[in-house]
Amino acid sequence: MDRIRRNERLAAMTRILTAAPNHIFTLSHFCEMFGAAKSTLSEDIDILREVFAQFHLGHLETVTGAAGGVRYRPILVGEEARACMETVAQMLSSPGRVLPGGFVYMADVLSRPDLVEKMGMIMASQYYRQEPDFVLTMETKGIPVALMAAKALDVPLVIVRRDSKVYEGPAVNINYLSGSAGRVETMSLSRRAVKEGQRALIVDDFMRAGGTARGMVDMMREFAVTVVGISVVMATREPQKKRVEGVKSLLMMEQVDDAQECAVIHPSDWLLQ
Amino acid sequence: MDRIRRNERLAAMTRILTAAPNHIFTLSHFCEMFGAAKSTLSEDIDILREVFAQFHLGHLETVTGAAGGVRYRPILVGEEARACMETVAQMLSSPGRVLPGGFVYMADVLSRPDLVEKMGMIMASQYYRQEPDFVLTMETKGIPVALMAAKALDVPLVIVRRDSKVYEGPAVNINYLSGSAGRVETMSLSRRAVKEGQRALIVDDFMRAGGTARGMVDMMREFAVTVVGISVVMATREPQKKRVEGVKSLLMMEQVDDAQECAVIHPSDWLLQ
Repeated sequence: MDRIRRNERLAAMTRILTAAPNHIFTLSHFCEMFGAAKSTLSEDIDILREVFAQFHLGHLETVTGAAGGVRYRPILVGEEARACMETVAQMLSSPGRVLPGGFVYMADVLSRPDLVEKMGMIMASQYYRQEPDFVLTMETKGIPVALMAAKALDVPLVIVRRDSKVYEGPAVNINYLSGSAGRVETMSLSRRAVKEGQRALIVDDFMRAGGTARGMVDMMREFAVTVVGISVVMATREPQKKRVEGVKSLLMMEQVDDAQECAVIHPSDWLLQ
Repeated sequence: MDRIRRNERLAAMTRILTAAPNHIFTLSHFCEMFGAAKSTLSEDIDILREVFAQFHLGHLETVTGAAGGVRYRPILVGEEARACMETVAQMLSSPGRVLPGGFVYMADVLSRPDLVEKMGMIMASQYYRQEPDFVLTMETKGIPVALMAAKALDVPLVIVRRDSKVYEGPAVNINYLSGSAGRVETMSLSRRAVKEGQRALIVDDFMRAGGTARGMVDMMREFAVTVVGISVVMATREPQKKRVEGVKSLLMMEQVDDAQECAVIHPSDWLLQ
């Protein structure tokens, strides 16, 4: 093999590390790939760490210990996170999005890959330390952002269904109070989807009273799983008391009624902390 | 600003280009960012193109013309695509996945970010030239892979729902013959989700007779949208005649019944072409 220059190593390592966020690569892995010494690769990583910091492209971290190596974490916090959510808030506040019943049309925003990837990164940035084993969401609209949060955290996504499905196998069903439907509904999760003792991060697209999130928390109790956090794209200001605690919402929506042409939506205050 | 070295530019450009696949960046964009001349950046791009090719990390392409610049396309084809799907086939063929009715439990595989990202890249690799304006899927299990295909193609994802929802606004409903439910069901798509004259790539998780895909094709006709292709994660060998034409399936599943412990699943032949 031709000798690989630093230039080339840095570009290839950047692609490999950032394509697998939060995944630990050993130095040996890169030594073999590039036929270079560990000391050389340590220098490479120092260079990458500084470049990523300088251009706000995320964190490159060295992890010590037996399972040690280097990992890339997309980090989107502070002013940048707020600016990103300001853009999304403006999109959602544009005229014509208010639907009968005071709902806001969000489907397009919630399935644009570039936007959900950024929102997933903002969510993940808040929960790296809690080390969730999976991200839990309830079908349907929250799936894209939940998947991107799971990707950033390097964990699987688990999807709660509205009914038991023939292709999910034995399932646990529970009832919950749905705010949007205004009645008791059922949610269902395949028995084999999660394991006792795991840690879940709950992600959803929208929260009014928190009935669906409460249902997911109850569901996790049935599975003996710890909930490490609840993160939603948008919550309503009212009711201020939700049925679950410790919710981090990226956006806050003020009271809206059918007669309004635009909803009043802005990034949540904690985003700047 | 300190002068930025080539090393640093290459790492930063790699991150920026690969984070926004299929998106065209002008050279001027990078000139401003790094305070470097166009000729210098052209050399940088030549280096990156070769590194990506050498390590099979995707294609860097120079696009000429008024809207020209440079774009990164994740490409997963041939032997590498086949090896990836061989791994997925082995996971799905493991004991205990066959459910009553001859269904195979796929939910975990279909929501693992690393796997769906690769499958989305394989799908996208087949359709860059067709230039779809969006990826269409029907809720629920196909959403993660469809999102990743949409991300690679740099287009939005559009999700067809099982029922009209209050938060989707006015919608078009059509009936279709569901193979798995064995009856006529309804699918619904928000009127504002797509525009007349656009081009759709249909992505779904599973196809038996193709009734759901047929429904999506009919739905696109209602919206005067052209379907440029249909890509699914897994199709059954039987019936060989599907209700839609030109389906590209990543995996093929042989006949399966409840009594079998394992399904027989393998990558499709076209993957090696």
